[in-house]
Amino acid sequence: MKALQYRTIGAPPEVVTVPDPEPGPGQVLLKVTAAGVCHSDIAVMSWPAEAFPYALPLTLGHEGVGTVAALGAGVTGLAEGDAVAVYGPWGCGTCAKCAEGKENYCLRADELGIRPPGLGRPGSMAEYLLVDDPRHLVPLDGLDPVAAVPLTDAGLTPYHAIKRSLAKLVPGSTAVVIGTGGLGHVAIQLLRALTPARVVALDVSEEKLGLARAVGAHEAVLSDARAADAVRALTGGLGAEVVLDFVGAAPTVATAGAVAAVEGDVTLVGIGGGALPVGFGVLPFEVSVTAPYWGSRGELIEVLDLARAGALSVHTETYALDDAPLAYERLHEGKVNGRAVILPHG
Amino acid sequence: MKALQYRTIGAPPEVVTVPDPEPGPGQVLLKVTAAGVCHSDIAVMSWPAEAFPYALPLTLGHEGVGTVAALGAGVTGLAEGDAVAVYGPWGCGTCAKCAEGKENYCLRADELGIRPPGLGRPGSMAEYLLVDDPRHLVPLDGLDPVAAVPLTDAGLTPYHAIKRSLAKLVPGSTAVVIGTGGLGHVAIQLLRALTPARVVALDVSEEKLGLARAVGAHEAVLSDARAADAVRALTGGLGAEVVLDFVGAAPTVATAGAVAAVEGDVTLVGIGGGALPVGFGVLPFEVSVTAPYWGSRGELIEVLDLARAGALSVHTETYALDDAPLAYERLHEGKVNGRAVILPHG
Amino acid sequence: MKALQYRTIGAPPEVVTVPDPEPGPGQVLLKVTAAGVCHSDIAVMSWPAEAFPYALPLTLGHEGVGTVAALGAGVTGLAEGDAVAVYGPWGCGTCAKCAEGKENYCLRADELGIRPPGLGRPGSMAEYLLVDDPRHLVPLDGLDPVAAVPLTDAGLTPYHAIKRSLAKLVPGSTAVVIGTGGLGHVAIQLLRALTPARVVALDVSEEKLGLARAVGAHEAVLSDARAADAVRALTGGLGAEVVLDFVGAAPTVATAGAVAAVEGDVTLVGIGGGALPVGFGVLPFEVSVTAPYWGSRGELIEVLDLARAGALSVHTETYALDDAPLAYERLHEGKVNGRAVILPHG
Amino acid sequence: MKALQYRTIGAPPEVVTVPDPEPGPGQVLLKVTAAGVCHSDIAVMSWPAEAFPYALPLTLGHEGVGTVAALGAGVTGLAEGDAVAVYGPWGCGTCAKCAEGKENYCLRADELGIRPPGLGRPGSMAEYLLVDDPRHLVPLDGLDPVAAVPLTDAGLTPYHAIKRSLAKLVPGSTAVVIGTGGLGHVAIQLLRALTPARVVALDVSEEKLGLARAVGAHEAVLSDARAADAVRALTGGLGAEVVLDFVGAAPTVATAGAVAAVEGDVTLVGIGGGALPVGFGVLPFEVSVTAPYWGSRGELIEVLDLARAGALSVHTETYALDDAPLAYERLHEGKVNGRAVILPHG
Repeated sequence: MKALQYRTIGAPPEVVTVPDPEPGPGQVLLKVTAAGVCHSDIAVMSWPAEAFPYALPLTLGHEGVGTVAALGAGVTGLAEGDAVAVYGPWGCGTCAKCAEGKENYCLRADELGIRPPGLGRPGSMAEYLLVDDPRHLVPLDGLDPVAAVPLTDAGLTPYHAIKRSLAKLVPGSTAVVIGTGGLGHVAIQLLRALTPARVVALDVSEEKLGLARAVGAHEAVLSDARAADAVRALTGGLGAEVVLDFVGAAPTVATAGAVAAVEGDVTLVGIGGGALPVGFGVLPFEVSVTAPYWGSRGELIEVLDLARAGALSVHTETYALDDAPLAYERLHEGKVNGRAVILPHG
Repeated sequence: MKALQYRTIGAPPEVVTVPDPEPGPGQVLLKVTAAGVCHSDIAVMSWPAEAFPYALPLTLGHEGVGTVAALGAGVTGLAEGDAVAVYGPWGCGTCAKCAEGKENYCLRADELGIRPPGLGRPGSMAEYLLVDDPRHLVPLDGLDPVAAVPLTDAGLTPYHAIKRSLAKLVPGSTAVVIGTGGLGHVAIQLLRALTPARVVALDVSEEKLGLARAVGAHEAVLSDARAADAVRALTGGLGAEVVLDFVGAAPTVATAGAVAAVEGDVTLVGIGGGALPVGFGVLPFEVSVTAPYWGSRGELIEVLDLARAGALSVHTETYALDDAPLAYERLHEGKVNGRAVILPHG
Repeated sequence: MKALQYRTIGAPPEVVTVPDPEPGPGQVLLKVTAAGVCHSDIAVMSWPAEAFPYALPLTLGHEGVGTVAALGAGVTGLAEGDAVAVYGPWGCGTCAKCAEGKENYCLRADELGIRPPGLGRPGSMAEYLLVDDPRHLVPLDGLDPVAAVPLTDAGLTPYHAIKRSLAKLVPGSTAVVIGTGGLGHVAIQLLRALTPARVVALDVSEEKLGLARAVGAHEAVLSDARAADAVRALTGGLGAEVVLDFVGAAPTVATAGAVAAVEGDVTLVGIGGGALPVGFGVLPFEVSVTAPYWGSRGELIEVLDLARAGALSVHTETYALDDAPLAYERLHEGKVNGRAVILPHG
Repeated sequence: MKALQYRTIGAPPEVVTVPDPEPGPGQVLLKVTAAGVCHSDIAVMSWPAEAFPYALPLTLGHEGVGTVAALGAGVTGLAEGDAVAVYGPWGCGTCAKCAEGKENYCLRADELGIRPPGLGRPGSMAEYLLVDDPRHLVPLDGLDPVAAVPLTDAGLTPYHAIKRSLAKLVPGSTAVVIGTGGLGHVAIQLLRALTPARVVALDVSEEKLGLARAVGAHEAVLSDARAADAVRALTGGLGAEVVLDFVGAAPTVATAGAVAAVEGDVTLVGIGGGALPVGFGVLPFEVSVTAPYWGSRGELIEVLDLARAGALSVHTETYALDDAPLAYERLHEGKVNGRAVILPHG
């Protein structure tokens, strides 16, 4: 079959032919209907050889949806042809974290060498994807593959970040979203669907602020040196109960800290290399700062339920598998509008 | 191999020889080191043929621990000889409840015909037990099999009931435990280990009240018509923030309601056929009444961790597999002191 | 000043002249701008003399908003002319419940003889209302008095009921609202503003079902013998995660229990005299049933914040104070559309 | 009356005679029976004139207990002679935070110029203390004044910090306490009384580690460059679910971050000037870092309830009011064993 592989450190990914995978006992083979192109892949491909944690070649793609093509021995509860989304952050399935569905925080994944598809294991940018266990699959139940595939990461990651803070997003509260691109513009929609909070979007691009408004932000503020003052002014000086930073660079994490209210939550999602110092007197009382990773199995089920209710709309542009290298190139150049999705069979 | 089976409606269970089970793909075969005898088995064996939900013969035993004897194809993360406890309330593993480890509340178990071992599927009262998936197994990590096996139900069930109410069990609060037998005497220990609450035990037997005091109850009150007044008096008239009823009969659920405080939790665990009416003006404001079932995978991990820390001590008496019918007979006659445990291999 | 008083058991309330109240130390005198007419007043006026808990005459009105007319000695943080809403369920202010703002569940109110205005203390259906402590007042901050006054009970009570269950109202969940009148039609709006749940409304009146749809219910079902089956069908057989019963009569609480899902919450708000029995096997596993009362101080602040954001619209019809007896008469006859509001000064 | 005042920037506090306070409307006058000497007073007295936020002279003492000496006009629910503890972090009593008892996070305190006694308002180190509102008082109900007074800060502050993390302190979890002095040695007792967690104490002093063991720490580790490795080793490499830093200096916050587990809570209580950077890849996934301040009204009630149950023992040494300057001197020199308490009347 054809697959998009990252083969040489520093080189662009290539479409190659690899052997067709076959499902062993307990495994499920998916015919991939859509695979999402994620910014973090570009980060991965920028790492130097000595810091590269995975074996090469690596079939890319940690967002995937497909239809069941074959069931390994012993698999029950699924049938050929079932349309499913793949929960990406695989874990051992049995440790204390996995027992609650938080496989993204599996306590044994390192020890057992378990990796997500596309991030160590062969990913979804191929005609077929081998899935280790049926528990990694969530039924699409009528969702469109192209619309659904970004939700497995670009939907799940902000959903998890927001879920942490739901109790603080009461009427009268304010949520600030910094960076209103791929994940951020989903976060705005999630906040509107899940909470009564006022949503304030920050971005350096007027165009993205326009998108932020279009998907439901109550306020859109240019993310410059005056942004923190602007948010303070919008909140009667009190600041925001929740701040979600989808950039995570030094200037944005500083802004995140500067706009947080007493007892506020600051959640740093972006992997831009910034860090926000926390200490007594450094931020308002009891501001809680954290940097989570992806989300849980139960949360993916909820994200897809929310999409099925019509509450989420992800901007996508599609590419054939042969054009996947081009998609990464355009993403790298900032030319992708929303989320690029690869159609391995189409 | 030998197994204890319930074969004929109304007749006692018998030790018979059945074919040795073999693990299929994804399954695990356990050599059973201990199996717990539970009061609910007696209830099951009292049901008339027309209400009996399982196929006969039925190998009994829904509490089990063992060592891994063989791994089915595709099973990873376990090795032969590993000592493990069995999480009993199996579910589909993939629905929204199972994705959070609440397989006891699986949304698809009925549809898919999934049953716990000993309650539909062949149980642990046999030399070997076939387990459908490694996720049902929790490492014993040094726990004694006889001490550990009752924790899979008689420990997990009260643990789950208490966990619901932890936020109410603050300093100054009172927890009432009604029925201080098999589950109740574990509940008292759990409350003492997990919370700062004052624990008041109620039972009709002075002997059991003695046991209640011995395992940590602050107060032990005879469960008669004056019990509710006694508990009110002990709590300055306010009642108890949490009431756990391990009997669940008409008189005990009435007492449970009568001793609950405003905003209290009443949890009916016993299957004694009682029901407590809830309505405005019937109980104090916002008393919440519920009847849960067993517990989650994550909770079983926590119960075993608590036992490993030395906080739980279950009274047990052991029987060889050939004497298992005698154990049920003695349990039925109220002669078992604590929990009866079967040792299939001696 | 003029006041509407219930003076004789069984007789209708009368408009009378009473002495003007004056604020003592720590008290606040309000000029009442709007007072809400509540169904529970009719229940109160139906009680026989031997069961009547308050002294007569009783100035009615437990929903009130006004402007500060005078401050008692020592009161700070308020100024004459401030427009405020009254938090009704007064407590001692210092016990463990009051310390968290749950004055509705004050542990010492009975002992200290503390009563809400209109329910023991002189109420808001008068030109002026004496408020014992500034903590009972929440700034209107621009809200219209007529629109805001029903929120102090008809808004706060369903808000509190829903807040209990927010964690269960995830995407894909269903909330059933039984009785879509005064409180119920606010509950629907609250559910839509606060959660992504699908809202199913039940009522015996087609007209009220129309109102339910108009304010946001996704489904509206006639509340008859087939209603439970209809809700089961709408939820794939699983039932509703949350059921709010604003009627609380025998048939509606039975329906509430019949439509609840495993681990669901049933909250009985209506004071229709029904009671729902809870026990193992009686309802699905771990359905939690409770009957709360009113709400907390913090919750009232949140309800008014939500109204300020435009998310709540209560249907009202207004009456001069002299016409207040007519308002009660019309309410009793079922002729009030939404909430009747008394304007003591106009 | 006599009072201990900080009068001149940089000079030691002095015992002086000041006018006897009298309670205005709504206020309560306490005869002080005990006042706690806190390390933070020394920090306050080290601030330079230009950064000093309070007016001078300042009567010290933000921990106080006393008996009601006189009630201002309009005060109810209290009687002369009642023994009470003072909740220190006063707020406005009506904002959204205060409405939930979190007056430590009052949204209007700055605007209204509200300060805690001893930190802006005249404090408890005097024969009499004026309290603005009876809601600031919690009944001692039999607690010894000397034993109880440190609980109003040295008990309440760690209690609040721990309460944030209770849900993570399940069986099998580990809590690390850094700095086992005044607050830290109370924190160890709180953790043992409230949770089943294993408690690991870190300190630079072997003597304090001895105290840590004596009050219940399971492990006591010297806080040096190898401490983080030692904690990792004690937790099977996973780290601690909860880390409480009562020092808050640069080296201890670094250790706090280094020992935290995935999804762990790091709470920085000490005001030692350190700050811990949080960002993706900087700490394990979703470690949440925060720096809280004091605690809520409801939490103080709970702390005193816990003390009444015998679960807390604070080491104290007592001084007459005339010797209060000596107590500060000894505290500054590190010579106080536990908590110094001033007895203004004896």
